[in-house]
Amino acid sequence: MALVVVGSVAYDGVETPHGKVDRMLGGAATYIALAASYFTPVKIVAVVGDDFARDDAGLLESRGIDLAGLERVPGGKTFFWEGVYSADMNDRTTLRTDLNVFADFSPKLPESYREEPYLLLGNIQPALQRSVRAQMPGLKLTGGDTMNYWINDYRGELLETIREWDFLLVNDAEARLLSGQHNLRRAAARILEMGPHTLVIKRGEYGAVLFRGAGTTEGHFMAHGYLLEDVFDPTGAGDCFAGGFIGYLAGRGIDARDRQIDFAELRRAVIYGSVMGSFCCEKFGVDRFRTLEREEIESRYREFQTCTAF
Amino acid sequence: MALVVVGSVAYDGVETPHGKVDRMLGGAATYIALAASYFTPVKIVAVVGDDFARDDAGLLESRGIDLAGLERVPGGKTFFWEGVYSADMNDRTTLRTDLNVFADFSPKLPESYREEPYLLLGNIQPALQRSVRAQMPGLKLTGGDTMNYWINDYRGELLETIREWDFLLVNDAEARLLSGQHNLRRAAARILEMGPHTLVIKRGEYGAVLFRGAGTTEGHFMAHGYLLEDVFDPTGAGDCFAGGFIGYLAGRGIDARDRQIDFAELRRAVIYGSVMGSFCCEKFGVDRFRTLEREEIESRYREFQTCTAF
Repeated sequence: MALVVVGSVAYDGVETPHGKVDRMLGGAATYIALAASYFTPVKIVAVVGDDFARDDAGLLESRGIDLAGLERVPGGKTFFWEGVYSADMNDRTTLRTDLNVFADFSPKLPESYREEPYLLLGNIQPALQRSVRAQMPGLKLTGGDTMNYWINDYRGELLETIREWDFLLVNDAEARLLSGQHNLRRAAARILEMGPHTLVIKRGEYGAVLFRGAGTTEGHFMAHGYLLEDVFDPTGAGDCFAGGFIGYLAGRGIDARDRQIDFAELRRAVIYGSVMGSFCCEKFGVDRFRTLEREEIESRYREFQTCTAF
Repeated sequence: MALVVVGSVAYDGVETPHGKVDRMLGGAATYIALAASYFTPVKIVAVVGDDFARDDAGLLESRGIDLAGLERVPGGKTFFWEGVYSADMNDRTTLRTDLNVFADFSPKLPESYREEPYLLLGNIQPALQRSVRAQMPGLKLTGGDTMNYWINDYRGELLETIREWDFLLVNDAEARLLSGQHNLRRAAARILEMGPHTLVIKRGEYGAVLFRGAGTTEGHFMAHGYLLEDVFDPTGAGDCFAGGFIGYLAGRGIDARDRQIDFAELRRAVIYGSVMGSFCCEKFGVDRFRTLEREEIESRYREFQTCTAF
């Protein structure tokens, strides 16, 4: 009963007001898988070059993550991204993007992955996301995210893809772009007509909002962002939100085939997503996951309750 | 047992993506008083010119607001402000500020106001805020707000003033400027060393965070902003938050002289503040308060509970 995560495994160069790292393990699938691994078994589908370090594979394996679907391209180089954050860390500028082996990424599902019930499709070309889903006949819950590039230039393909999803995770700007509506409630109502019955709009440090429904919203849930004392590096926080969100639901054995996920479970999933995103920011890159324990996660979940109940 | 509100009563010209009004009733004290009037009796201290319309006084009086402290300067003109909002209404540009009679505002407390227990000091010169407080010997709860101008150019005076307050209401940027700390938790800890035992950081559409403590924070409360279906005009929303916040506490008879306000009451006050700010945005200027009923406020408070509990 594992979760399959599809997306990028990469090396990142990151500069924040707190420091600079030239090259470290990154990529959406990496962050999603690490965060989800605290809740459920995880299997990765991604591609790397032969520069992918043994230690980095080791970190993923140490969290029990299955790497049978991690394709290694001989002579190839791993996706590299470099960026610098603004002083308040709410904006970042990309300095360099070398797609390398990720440019020709064609997800290959190992036989051992195909019967799994949970699927998180990271931000890749919509047609590829769809092809993965088509190879998994026993899915109980499917969701993923996307980005402005696919929304603008691959709209038809994207709409065909997300029509089959149970949930979509996007940020404010993506929700507005996808729906053509500025107001978030109107944007959500429009997106819920596109297929997913659950929509999570991530708002960075300000939190997240979850909408449920079909066509019209049946209800929503608002969570303020966790207030960290120190934010070292926000890279991967949104992906860790996604990992915590679906990881929690997978761990609970949620079955969305009748499109009726218990709203209370979805709310908890949003909070676990926020918790995982907050931990991610406490150290550079994936470093926080080298030491993070499940009990710390539960403790922060309870802190969320204390700080939001009225 | 009334609340005294000191600040500006003004005319505003406002343009938002939804329309344009050349001249309408505005000013911080107006919004604060209107919002608070749903919870407690309110008495205004402000100054206007003889162009102040009978109908506008009538609106305030219709909410039971005492205008004995509304000074009218013969031959003078009322403070006028004009601004235009950005497409997403998160930024605004001031086009014109005519202080007029507000330039020489020296708050005069009618005898009938001096024994009141609640005081909200709107954004005026810190020394004037202090002089008002000094004239009210029976205060049970005092708070107010300020702005970047006073923080930058009247820092000493401002620090002397807020030292005597029970609570301070500021936005993110003001909290950072006042504390010299970017991180909100660190900023809050620094500000709580300056005197107030309660700090509310308003985050616009993203909500508000409340901190309590002395020196170190004893705890905090986070509230996501209410998601409106239509935002017509955000002018005054922050002031309405302030009005709802202190109005609720005044209506509950809170006595902060021992500096021990029940945290649960403070949390509810933050939500009522958010509720009043959200109503304010639904129509231009103060128009929403022409029809708003207390039952609508209670209904939205309950909606906040439904949308945030987990």
